Amino acid sequence: MTHAIIQDLERRYTAKRYDSSKRISAQDLEVIYEALRLSASSINSQPWKFIVIESDAARQRLDTTFANMFQFNQVHVMAASHIILFAHNPAYSRDDYARVIDKGIADGRTKREDRDAAFAAFAFVELNMDENGDTSAWTKAQTYIALGNCLHTLARLKIDSTTMEGVDSDLIGQVFAKELDGFVCEVALAMGYHHPTEDYNATLPKSRLAKETIISII
Amino acid sequence: MTHAIIQDLERRYTAKRYDSSKRISAQDLEVIYEALRLSASSINSQPWKFIVIESDAARQRLDTTFANMFQFNQVHVMAASHIILFAHNPAYSRDDYARVIDKGIADGRTKREDRDAAFAAFAFVELNMDENGDTSAWTKAQTYIALGNCLHTLARLKIDSTTMEGVDSDLIGQVFAKELDGFVCEVALAMGYHHPTEDYNATLPKSRLAKETIISII
Repeated sequence: MTHAIIQDLERRYTAKRYDSSKRISAQDLEVIYEALRLSASSINSQPWKFIVIESDAARQRLDTTFANMFQFNQVHVMAASHIILFAHNPAYSRDDYARVIDKGIADGRTKREDRDAAFAAFAFVELNMDENGDTSAWTKAQTYIALGNCLHTLARLKIDSTTMEGVDSDLIGQVFAKELDGFVCEVALAMGYHHPTEDYNATLPKSRLAKETIISII
Repeated sequence: MTHAIIQDLERRYTAKRYDSSKRISAQDLEVIYEALRLSASSINSQPWKFIVIESDAARQRLDTTFANMFQFNQVHVMAASHIILFAHNPAYSRDDYARVIDKGIADGRTKREDRDAAFAAFAFVELNMDENGDTSAWTKAQTYIALGNCLHTLARLKIDSTTMEGVDSDLIGQVFAKELDGFVCEVALAMGYHHPTEDYNATLPKSRLAKETIISII
């Protein structure tokens, strides 16, 4: 299929080695950040934080979180241009949703007199909260919408990436406690430009299950 | 920001009423299906099925699943052009991964002699399996990558959409048992073209939390 969308998605793959001499331009970074911010989420909850690892100091901190496991991803910490920690709010509250509503009022989306009525959508959070007030399953799912959106964005920008569920969530929680502020990171995304010779995955053909295996049109 | 990516994402919103006289073209549908198929997933697991509701008969069946709850989404069943049920595999198995590996061999991605070695990645599934063999949390997350990818794809195609976590997963499981074949649908996506006058959300300004609230660059 020759559609530009399909060409972008066929070109996208998971980079296995980065060229540490190449960095994403400031202009492209701004597009990525704005694309993340514009991601869709249930009831516009935006239950996420994106921690972008850019400086050498931040890389050194991230490097320490591979002390115990998933060392196969450690190689990206220094070589990738940037790494985004995708974090979700484990206990999304009425106060969190109030911030969304008040921003909606500031943005002219919600009328000030409709502020109380706007909380009706919070019933959906309560449906997705366990008996301990834990909303992780629901809020984490929303971060994966942002991840899917970001992967598509990077494909369009011709920036390579590596999704890493292989991260030590507990150690990241300790090392980046200040930035996470109670949020939980269980997936990260390395971004940059693949190594010209050492990325075995760059030249392998893409493989996907057949359309008829995964799609039923009824 | 005037970048084409941001223009697409700023234009995207959640449609609240569809124009039932407008249908997505066959050409665009093929792009959507192929984009779904090309979605990224952890270890290329592709633990998903996409059931596309297109015919009147399928719409009638979907309509019955709103008998008990989430009736605010029922209006889309007949008016939207198509509705995709996103379903995940609740018990992703070694056999499921074997199908991925064998397709990789057929596609020239994996050498036949490396078939056994390719199962090493299945350790990641075991890490994400609970004591009952339930992989739902992990496989459902992957479907949300496909959802985020699909929302971006639709934005590029200028097709409107409505993500619906407000679906009755149990009733869908009963009514579409044959198509789901043990998979679980907890989110659906209506797609089409918004009603020219009755979609209150079409003209409201988009609202998102400020960049500095959700993104930290360190």
